[in-house]
Amino acid sequence: MEAGNQLSFKERLNKIIFEADTPSGKAFDIILIVSIVISVLVVMLDSVSSYRAVYGDWFFKIEWVITILFTFEYILRLTTAERSRGYIFSFYGFVDLLSFLPTYLSLLIPGTQFFLVIRILRVLRVFRVLKFTRYIVEADQLRNALASSRRKIIIFVYTVITITVIVGSLMHVIEGPENGFTSIPRGIYWAIVTLTTVGYGDISPQTNLGQMVSAIIMILGYGIIAIPTGIFTAEFSRVNRDKQTTKTCPHCSKEGHDSDAEYCKYCGGKLNPE
Amino acid sequence: MEAGNQLSFKERLNKIIFEADTPSGKAFDIILIVSIVISVLVVMLDSVSSYRAVYGDWFFKIEWVITILFTFEYILRLTTAERSRGYIFSFYGFVDLLSFLPTYLSLLIPGTQFFLVIRILRVLRVFRVLKFTRYIVEADQLRNALASSRRKIIIFVYTVITITVIVGSLMHVIEGPENGFTSIPRGIYWAIVTLTTVGYGDISPQTNLGQMVSAIIMILGYGIIAIPTGIFTAEFSRVNRDKQTTKTCPHCSKEGHDSDAEYCKYCGGKLNPE
Amino acid sequence: MEAGNQLSFKERLNKIIFEADTPSGKAFDIILIVSIVISVLVVMLDSVSSYRAVYGDWFFKIEWVITILFTFEYILRLTTAERSRGYIFSFYGFVDLLSFLPTYLSLLIPGTQFFLVIRILRVLRVFRVLKFTRYIVEADQLRNALASSRRKIIIFVYTVITITVIVGSLMHVIEGPENGFTSIPRGIYWAIVTLTTVGYGDISPQTNLGQMVSAIIMILGYGIIAIPTGIFTAEFSRVNRDKQTTKTCPHCSKEGHDSDAEYCKYCGGKLNPE
Amino acid sequence: MEAGNQLSFKERLNKIIFEADTPSGKAFDIILIVSIVISVLVVMLDSVSSYRAVYGDWFFKIEWVITILFTFEYILRLTTAERSRGYIFSFYGFVDLLSFLPTYLSLLIPGTQFFLVIRILRVLRVFRVLKFTRYIVEADQLRNALASSRRKIIIFVYTVITITVIVGSLMHVIEGPENGFTSIPRGIYWAIVTLTTVGYGDISPQTNLGQMVSAIIMILGYGIIAIPTGIFTAEFSRVNRDKQTTKTCPHCSKEGHDSDAEYCKYCGGKLNPE
Repeated sequence: MEAGNQLSFKERLNKIIFEADTPSGKAFDIILIVSIVISVLVVMLDSVSSYRAVYGDWFFKIEWVITILFTFEYILRLTTAERSRGYIFSFYGFVDLLSFLPTYLSLLIPGTQFFLVIRILRVLRVFRVLKFTRYIVEADQLRNALASSRRKIIIFVYTVITITVIVGSLMHVIEGPENGFTSIPRGIYWAIVTLTTVGYGDISPQTNLGQMVSAIIMILGYGIIAIPTGIFTAEFSRVNRDKQTTKTCPHCSKEGHDSDAEYCKYCGGKLNPE
Repeated sequence: MEAGNQLSFKERLNKIIFEADTPSGKAFDIILIVSIVISVLVVMLDSVSSYRAVYGDWFFKIEWVITILFTFEYILRLTTAERSRGYIFSFYGFVDLLSFLPTYLSLLIPGTQFFLVIRILRVLRVFRVLKFTRYIVEADQLRNALASSRRKIIIFVYTVITITVIVGSLMHVIEGPENGFTSIPRGIYWAIVTLTTVGYGDISPQTNLGQMVSAIIMILGYGIIAIPTGIFTAEFSRVNRDKQTTKTCPHCSKEGHDSDAEYCKYCGGKLNPE
Repeated sequence: MEAGNQLSFKERLNKIIFEADTPSGKAFDIILIVSIVISVLVVMLDSVSSYRAVYGDWFFKIEWVITILFTFEYILRLTTAERSRGYIFSFYGFVDLLSFLPTYLSLLIPGTQFFLVIRILRVLRVFRVLKFTRYIVEADQLRNALASSRRKIIIFVYTVITITVIVGSLMHVIEGPENGFTSIPRGIYWAIVTLTTVGYGDISPQTNLGQMVSAIIMILGYGIIAIPTGIFTAEFSRVNRDKQTTKTCPHCSKEGHDSDAEYCKYCGGKLNPE
Repeated sequence: MEAGNQLSFKERLNKIIFEADTPSGKAFDIILIVSIVISVLVVMLDSVSSYRAVYGDWFFKIEWVITILFTFEYILRLTTAERSRGYIFSFYGFVDLLSFLPTYLSLLIPGTQFFLVIRILRVLRVFRVLKFTRYIVEADQLRNALASSRRKIIIFVYTVITITVIVGSLMHVIEGPENGFTSIPRGIYWAIVTLTTVGYGDISPQTNLGQMVSAIIMILGYGIIAIPTGIFTAEFSRVNRDKQTTKTCPHCSKEGHDSDAEYCKYCGGKLNPE
C-alpha cells in the first residue's frame, strides 16, 4: 500500500509540476513565474553599482533563497520526471540547471562575473510555463510559418551578408582608415548597421563617393525589408487559413482538409458535412 | 408643460453633445476639435521658454478661456448624460476631467510643472469626436484585427524582451562599463535600441566581439519585424475579406458577392438589398 | 486651306507633346527627360561651393540653355493645349512654369537662394512623361490601394501623433532641459525620431526612467509599423486580385466582374465565357 | 579508344564540377565552399592591421595556396565546359577570374589595395554552388515575385528619390551650411538617411522649422515602407499560391487541389499522380 501511495504521490507531483490544468498545477506555475521574474530583476539590479552599494545585502539574500528554491524544484523535477535522463539532457533541463548552478559555483570560484550573468538565462524558463497554456496553439502557428519559410529566409540572410561583405570592403577602400573604416570587418559592421537601418552614427561616411554608396545601400536596405516580411506573411496567411479545417476523415482518420472539401483527399471517402 | 419642455431641451442638448448627425451636433464637434487643437498648441508653445517670455500673457488668457469652456462642457455632459455616474467613471469622462482640472489646481499648488503637462492629454479627446463619424467602421476593423492577433503579438513581444535581456547581459560582460555598458539594464536598453533598429549611437559597441554580437542582433532585429507584420497582415486581410462577403443569393444560396453586387454572379438571380 | 494646315500642324504638335505613341512623341519625351535630369544635376552641383567655384560659368550657361528650352516648351504646350486655361492652372502647368520662371526672376531679384532652389521641382516633371507609358497601370494600382486605405491610414497617423505628443510631453517632464528635452515640441520631435526608429541620437534619454519609457516606445514603434503595412498589403492584394477581371457585361457594358462570375452582378445578364 | 576515354574523362569532370548529384560532385562543392569561406576570411583579417602584423605571413601563404587552387579550378572549368567561350563571358566566369587574377596582378603592380579587395567578390561564388541544390526552387520563387513587382518597385523608388531631392533642397535652404546642410547633395544624403529611418545623426536639423519638416519626413518614411512590403507580399503570395494548384481532377475537371492530395476533394475521384 505504501509503495502504491508513494507512486501516486509521485504521479500527483508530476501533474503539479509538468501540467497546468489543476488548481495546484496553476498555483505552482504562478509561484514559479513570480520567482523567475524576481530573480531576474535581482540579477539586473545587482549589476547597477549604485544599487548594489545600497541593497547588495538584500540582493544576496534573495538570490540565495531563490537559488535554493530552484535547486529544490530541480530535484523535484528530476525525481518525478518519467525519464529523468531525458529531462537532464533536454533544453529546459539544461536551463533549469543553469538557473542555480552559477550561484553555488560563485562560492568556489569568486570574481567570475560572467558566471553570475548566466543566471539571466532564467528568463527562458517562463517559456516552459507558457507551453502548458493556450498560447501553445499560437506559438505553434508562428513556429510552423517560420519553419516552412526557413529556406527562403536562409537565402535572404545569405544575400544580405554577401551585400554587406562587398559594400563593407568597398567602403574600406573608398573612405579609408582616416574616416573610421579601419578594416574590412569594420566596414562590414558599418554596412550591417546601415543596411538594417540601425544607423548608430559611430562610423559614418565623410567623402562624397562614400555618401553616394551609402545612400544606395540605405534605399536598398529600406526596400528589401519587404522580402522577409513578404515571405513570412505569405506563409503565415497559409498556416492561418489552413488552421480552420478541423474536419477529420471518417474513413482514414486523416486531418488537414480544406473547408470546401467534400471528399477526403487521401482516401477519396465522403467527409461528414460540418 | 415646462417640465416637458425642459426634458426635451435636455434631450436636444444630449443629441448635440453626444451625436453628430444634426447640423448643431456637427457644429458642436467642430468647435470642440478647434478648441482642443488650440489648447494643445498653447500647452506646447508655453513650454518653449523663448515663446513663453514673449507671448506668456496670451497663452495664460487663452488657457483660461479654454479651461472655462471645457468646464462648462463637462457640466453639460454630466447633466445631459443618461447615466451621469457612468460618464464620470468612463475613460472619456476621466480625460474630460483632466482637461480642465490641472489648470484650477495650478492656482492652488503653484510650480508643479507635471500638473500642467497633464493638460496635453486633451489630445485624446479628438478620438471621441471621431467615434461619431464614419471613421468608426475602419477603426473597428483595425481594433478587431489587433484583438484577434493579440496572443501572437504577446508571444512575439515576450520573445523580443527575452532576446534583449540575454543579449543586454552578454554585452554588459563583453563590453564592460568602460564602453558605456555600465550595468545589465543599460545593456538591455542598448539591445532594445539596436534590435528595434532605432540606433541612437549614445552607446555603441567598441570591441570586435561586441560588434560581432551586435551585427547578429541587428540582422535578427531587421528580419523579425516580419513577424508582427505577418501576424497583423494575415488577421487584417481576414477581417477585411469577411466584411465584404455577407450576402447570400436567395436563389442558389451561394455566397461571396461583392458589396456592390445587385445580381448573383453565379445564377443571375436578384440579390436581396442589405 | 492655310487655316486647315495650321490646325493640323497644331494637332500634330499636340500629339508629339501630349502623347507618346508616335516616334516623334517618344523622341520628344526622351529629350525632355534628359534635359530635366541635366538641369536638376546642375542645380544640385551648383549648390556645392567647391564645384561652383570651378564650374560656375558652365553651370550658368547650361542653366540658361535649359531655361530657354523649357520656356519654349511651355509656350508650345500653352498654344497646342486644347484648353490652355486648363493647362495653366493644372498641377503640371504650375510645375512647368516654376521650372523656368525662377531663373528669369533671379535676374531681377538677385541673391534669393530660395528662388533658385525652386528649380529643383523640375524633378516632378519626369512623372508626367511616365504618365504616358505602361507604368500608368501599375501607378494606378498603387494609387487605388492607397486611396481605399486612406481612412485607416489617417486613423493610424493620428494615433501615432497622439502617442508622440503624450510621450514627448512626459519625457520633457522626466528628462528636463538639462538632457536636451528643452520644451514639449522638442520632446515630441524626439518621440517622433524614436517611434519611427530613425534614432539620430542628437537627443537621447539619460535618466533611468527616461530610458525605460523610451524602451517601451521603441518596442511600440517597432511593432506598430505592422499596422500601415497590413492595411496597405490587404488593400493592394485585393486591388491586385480584382485587376484580373477584364470581362465586360454584353448587356450593360459594366466592368469589374470577378473571374468566376457567370452573370453580371449589376444587371443579371449572362456574361460571355472568356 | 583513347579519344573516347578522354572524352568520357572530360564528361566525368564536367559532371563533378557542374553538377551536384554525384558523391564526387558533392565533395567538390563542399571543398569549394570551404576554400571560398577560408579565402574570404583571410582577405578580411588581412585588412586588420594588428592581425596582419602578427599573422601576415600565414595569410600570404594561405592566399597563394587558394589562388593556385582557384586557378586550377578555372582551367578545369574552361576545358570541361561545353562552350568555353560562353563560360568565360558568363557572370560566374567573370567572378571566377576575379577570384585569382588580382593576386597575380599584385606581384606585377604592388601597392594597389583596391586590386586586393576585389578578391572579396569570391563571396559571390557560393551562390553558384547553391544553384545546384534544392534551394533553387525557393530562390526562383523569390526572383519571380521580385520580377513581377519590378515596375511597381521602380515607381516607388523614383517617388522616394523625388521626395528626398525636394526635401533635401528645402532643408539646405532652411538649415543652411552652418548646421551641416552645406549643399543640396548633402541635404539629399540627409533626407535619404532620415526617410529610410537609418538616422546616423551626423547631420541633424537644429532649427525649429527644420525639425518640423524632418518630423513630417520621418512619419512619411515610417509609413511608406508599407508600399514595397505590400507590393512584394501580394506578388509573393500569388507566386506561392500558384505553385500549389496545378493538378486538375480527371473526373470533374475541378482545380485547386493541395500538393499532397491523392483524391479529388470535390468528387472523390482518384487524381493522376504528378
